[in-house]
Parts: sequence; structure tokens; C-alpha cells
Amino acid sequence: MNQAVPVLPSEDTVALAGLVRVCEPPSAALARFVDKVGAVAAWHGVLARRAPQALLAATAARTDNLTREALARRAEGDLVTAAAAGARLIGREDPGWPSDAVASFQGALARGVRGAAPPIALYVRGRPLIGLPGRGVTIVGSRASSAYGQRVAGEMSHEMACRGITVISGAAFGIDTAAHRGALHAGRSGAVGGTAASTVAVLACGIDRAYPEANRALLDAIAQSGAVVSEYPPGTTPARHRFLVRNRLIAAFGAATVVVEAGRRSGTLSTAAAAEQLGRLVMAVPGPVTSAMSVGCHLLLSDRFAQLVTGAEDVLAALGRLPPENRNDQREEPTPGQDPLHPTDGLDEVGARVYDALPTRATCSIDELVVESGLSSTQVMGALAVLHLHGLAGKEGTLWRRLTPADHR
Amino acid sequence: MNQAVPVLPSEDTVALAGLVRVCEPPSAALARFVDKVGAVAAWHGVLARRAPQALLAATAARTDNLTREALARRAEGDLVTAAAAGARLIGREDPGWPSDAVASFQGALARGVRGAAPPIALYVRGRPLIGLPGRGVTIVGSRASSAYGQRVAGEMSHEMACRGITVISGAAFGIDTAAHRGALHAGRSGAVGGTAASTVAVLACGIDRAYPEANRALLDAIAQSGAVVSEYPPGTTPARHRFLVRNRLIAAFGAATVVVEAGRRSGTLSTAAAAEQLGRLVMAVPGPVTSAMSVGCHLLLSDRFAQLVTGAEDVLAALGRLPPENRNDQREEPTPGQDPLHPTDGLDEVGARVYDALPTRATCSIDELVVESGLSSTQVMGALAVLHLHGLAGKEGTLWRRLTPADHR
Repeated sequence: MNQAVPVLPSEDTVALAGLVRVCEPPSAALARFVDKVGAVAAWHGVLARRAPQALLAATAARTDNLTREALARRAEGDLVTAAAAGARLIGREDPGWPSDAVASFQGALARGVRGAAPPIALYVRGRPLIGLPGRGVTIVGSRASSAYGQRVAGEMSHEMACRGITVISGAAFGIDTAAHRGALHAGRSGAVGGTAASTVAVLACGIDRAYPEANRALLDAIAQSGAVVSEYPPGTTPARHRFLVRNRLIAAFGAATVVVEAGRRSGTLSTAAAAEQLGRLVMAVPGPVTSAMSVGCHLLLSDRFAQLVTGAEDVLAALGRLPPENRNDQREEPTPGQDPLHPTDGLDEVGARVYDALPTRATCSIDELVVESGLSSTQVMGALAVLHLHGLAGKEGTLWRRLTPADHR
Repeated sequence: MNQAVPVLPSEDTVALAGLVRVCEPPSAALARFVDKVGAVAAWHGVLARRAPQALLAATAARTDNLTREALARRAEGDLVTAAAAGARLIGREDPGWPSDAVASFQGALARGVRGAAPPIALYVRGRPLIGLPGRGVTIVGSRASSAYGQRVAGEMSHEMACRGITVISGAAFGIDTAAHRGALHAGRSGAVGGTAASTVAVLACGIDRAYPEANRALLDAIAQSGAVVSEYPPGTTPARHRFLVRNRLIAAFGAATVVVEAGRRSGTLSTAAAAEQLGRLVMAVPGPVTSAMSVGCHLLLSDRFAQLVTGAEDVLAALGRLPPENRNDQREEPTPGQDPLHPTDGLDEVGARVYDALPTRATCSIDELVVESGLSSTQVMGALAVLHLHGLAGKEGTLWRRLTPADHR
């Protein structure tokens, strides 16, 4: 059979393609066997029916009626199909392999987390998957998103990408699309440098397919300045259970998973659960309590399962990339009508009480101030001196009145 | 001097009126002295300058230039002014006195919390202050509120009052007004029975004043089916520092304090801080992260200082008045486009995978399903039987296809 393997792709790559074709992920049995004997020996073992029983059972459905030659041809055919779609298959030997992100599955697997098996290979269109999860943040949310959610996701993602963070999402309509677009826009404005992907889309179908079809152009754009990833063989349909399986990769690739909008039963919540199981930070963006699209976020927050974040600054602060006191400062404007800077800010309580006791449109005596403020005349006179110095009190003979900013214009 | 005291009001009431007139709250010295010797002896002590030094210092500004007779006349005058405004002065001997609410100040005072002195008396217009804080919830927020915040406050408050909860707030514009109105509306629809107040407004000025003036009619309505309260003598101006002092009473009267909207530096946050210091639950309503009016709420939530609540149900659940699983159920509708009930809900994983593998607009063989699903033919056939039974799979000869709800219409 070996003579059927061309010089390019390598024997290792063909073996991975073959294994990915015959075994539906996640498969702990497959991951363990490849870890133990390597991809080539594992593939030959499966072909020769000399592999752990669990693995033979998991691959039976897709090997039983096929000859070894047919299976090998299919593996090679998958690589050809992938190449035609601009993708290649990478394994743990590839320099673009996200080793750190995949490593976190070992811990989850050891703790008995169901479905936590790592991928043994990934089809990738675009840039290498480097710096994940360290420099990656996952931003996800409902397909049925609101204009509010899309705006928040887009802005957060854009700011992340401008700071060199890779934004990971699932290329679905709604929040995912807004997240990818925000990051792509940062890439176009030249903010994302080097070889790191501005954004990574992880698919629940074959790398040669666009799902949703309407996002085909978006996926092509992501493949240009970012990466499109799938652990499924080419041609795989985006069946419902594959989204849940795929979500664990979305969660694994980011240091944090941020849920921007999610309905009560949104599939997005499974990404949050996967992130938590993989030891990632889980964050959620609040929204109007009158919006059904924020109910899932509020559930995550009220159970204290997730950290509340209002934007990129909060996420980076929680990840230790920013001092917490900087939070929001770039985004928040003083609220009109909220009087953020009061003239008495910085005064002690006595000073503030005398200031409050001073009339604005009339004058009053020190004795009147004593009664109104409930302070001693010594305290009142001391405070008046300080207020006078700060331009907050005006003296007319022996009478005093309050000065407002208008008096200084 | 005693002969100047009329039969009505009692000597005790006049003494309280006198003490309230000469001592700006909060005063731990006054509270302790009244606790120790009673109101009448405390008042005579202050008049005779035989009182603890701290209390004499605190009352000096408003007693120094006045004779004992003048002070006694002022106390009686305050009671007359209050009566003219429909208010009376109550102390701890009064059956309408909120003993439990006031008692919580003792603990805070013992822990050294600054400004935690209890009131010695309260001017009240309206119903007795019973059932507080046990059956009270404080709902507060910014004056510069959004339509969103007003809606949430109004609905939450209305639902509370419908369940016999007294809503406490500060009669300010914005959230406070919406909270009072929501409760009043419940009162009008007859939901609030008995003698408990539907809503309580605590003022930062004299009971004879309306602040803000535009809320005069609202305050009159509150005095009808609820209560308006002040610890200040009649005529007192609503100086800025009095709002902070007043806020501790607003916090004390509710079992929980709910912040509906608050800017970054909102005075409302002082009510939340007071609630926490008094051992009350602190809750906050999230909002759009794009709204400056929700920044304060999000700060409370992200510091995990406050519990996230989305409506009255959440508040009551957190207070142990509702089983937590009921949360939101009355308010939340299934989200359009969110597919809250999927046909495969209730199926096991094998069933769901076979369902997903079935084509909708074509038919396929069991062998094709085996390959597509990655399951054994035994598993596929078993699952098909279950799906067929549930009307989720249709059989045409030896071929199968997926049935959707449309097929059953």
C-alpha cells in the first residue's frame, strides 16, 4: 500500500487524513492511540484491524465495507479536495499546530470530562495557528442577535485585533459574524502585524464547505488575514451534534471565552461550559433585561459562572493585560446630567456641608450658616476660608454666598 | 418649662422634636444618650448643658444663642408645622416605629461603620412603617435615567407591590419616581391590602417640603397609600450631604437594595454601600454596556458586590421568597429564531446523530447513514426505529428521510 502514497503529502499527513476520515471526533481512543504509536502506525493499525478495541468500534462504521486500498485512496482524495479549497492538514509535528491549546484537553480528559478528546489533526486555510490560546480570545454569541449585540461584538473584536489579539469564533450568523468582521477590519487597517491570524473561524463542517453559505465571502476573507479551521474531513455536513463538538475547539483556542449574547437555551452556552471545563476564563456581556438575547448572558452572570465584561478593556484587564483601573476609561464619556465632577469633590465633609448651606441667589451671615450647617462658627469660618480660596464662596461685606462655575465664566 | 408642653403632643414627642431640631443627623452621641436616658431626659440634659461632651458639641451650633424657652417653642412649632403638612413625629415607643430596620444600625455602629447612627425619631406622612425591612425592598437609581431603566424599575416595583412588598425609594426624578409610581399603580389596582404601605419615600429635606418640587403630587399620592418619611425637622433644605445621610435609611428599610440604573459616580452607589454595611442584600440590574446609565450597575456586578437581577422574580428568589427555578419564567417568551424546542430534545446522542444524518429533501440508505453518522448499523437501525416512532424519520421502501414539523401539518 505504501507505494500508493505520493512524495507530497507525507506519509504522516496521509495517515492523519485517513484517521480523520474514519473516526468521528471527539474520540479519546483515537487521540490516545496516535499519542502512543504515532499517526502512521495508528493508521496502519486501524487498516489492519490491530488497534485498541474502542478505536476499532469507533471506526467500524466507516471502514467495514471498504478495502485498505479504497481507504488509502480516500485519505489522499481528501487531501486533494482540501488543497483545491486552499487548505492543508496539519498535525502535532507541524510548526503551525496549536500545541498549547490542544494540551489543555489532556487535563480535562484526565478529569473525566466527557467529549474532551483533542483533535489529532486540523484542516487549515490561512495562517498558522500560533500564539493560541495565549494571545487568543474567543467571542461568541447567538445567531439570532440584536443590533446591540452585533455592535458590542464588532467593537470588542476590533479593539482586540488592534491590540494583536486573535479573535476566535464560529462563523455563524449574528454575533460570530460581527466578531470576525470587527477583527478583519482591524487587520485591514494594518493593526494586526506579523504572522498571527487576526481572526480564526472554526467550522462544524468540512473545510471545503461554507456554512452558512451566505458567509462564503466572509470565510474567504478570514482565510486571507486569519485562518479557517476544521477537524472534519472535506465534504462533512454541518450536522447539529458537530456544532457542540466544534465548540470545544472554539473554547480551547482562546484564553477567555466571551459570550456577547445568548438566548436561554443557546448553543453558545455549551461553548462557555467547554471553556470552563478547559480551565479558560468565561466572561459575559450584560444587556437589557428586556432582551431575550441577553437572558443566557444574565444566567451565566447571576450564577457567578462568568465574569461581567463591558468591552475589550474589561476582557484584557481580567486576563491581566491591563491594570484594572484603566477599565472603561477610553470608552466612557461623562454622563450628561450626571454631574460627574461636583465643585465640592476633594473638600472634606465640613467644607462640603458649609458649601451646601451657602445660598446661591442670596447672601447669608456666618451665624445663619452655623444654624443651617449644624457646625460650630469656628468650623464654618475655617471652611469659608477654604471655599473662598477655591473660588467656591464669595464675600460681600460680612455676608457670604455660593459661587458656581457660572460665576467664573 | 413643663407647663409650656401641651397635653397633645406628649412630652416625649416634644423632646424628640427638640432633639431632632438641634442635632444634625447622623449622630451616634445623640442616639446613645436617648437610648440610655430616654428622650425627655436627653432633651432636658441638652437644654441644661448636662449631656455627654460629644452631644453638646454636636448641638452647640443650634442652641448657643437661644434660650431654653425659645428652643422649646421651636420644638412645638416644628410639630405644628408637621401637623399642618399632614405629618406626625414618631419615636421608638410608637407602634408604627420600624424597630427592626433601625435595629440594624446598632450592629453597623458596633462594627465602627461611619455615619451608621440610627434616627431617634421620624416625621411620617401616611401609613405606619410596619413590616420593614422584612417585607420591604429598596429600588433606587439615577435621576438621569433612560427609558429602559424607568420601564424596568416601574415593572419591578409594580410586581413587588402586587405581592404585598413595600417598595422604598427616594422620590428623586428618574428611577425613584418610576419605582414609586409602579408601586402606587399596584395599590390602585387593589393588590396591596392591609395597613402596610405600598411604597415609602424617604426625604433628604423637611417633611413639609416637596423635593423635587415637581414631585409634589407624587409625594401626596405616596402619603395616601404609602408613607413619606424624614428624619429632618420641618423646613430643612435638601442639601447635598443630606442625600448621603438619607440614603442609609433608604437602605435600612428594605431587605434588599436593588440598583436599577446608576452612572459611574452616581449617589445611588452610596445607597448600595450603606445596604451592604447594614447587612442587606445588594442587587443590580444590568443594561446595555453602551449606556452610561448602567455603568454603575456593571461596576457593582463585575466586582461581585451585587447580585444580578433581571426583575421582581429574581429579587424575590434571592430573598428566598420564590424557588429559584421559577426565575424569569413568567416574563420570558421563547426567543423567535432561537429554536427553543428542537425535535431531538429528549433523544439520546445516538438518536440525535442519526436524525442529523438524515437528509431532509432526499432519501438515503442505512449504509449511507452508517457512514454519515459514524455509528454502527445496529445503532443506526435502533435509532431509526425510535425516530420513526416519534414521527421524526420517514421510510420509503428501504430508504429513509428526515421528517420535520412541516410534514405533520
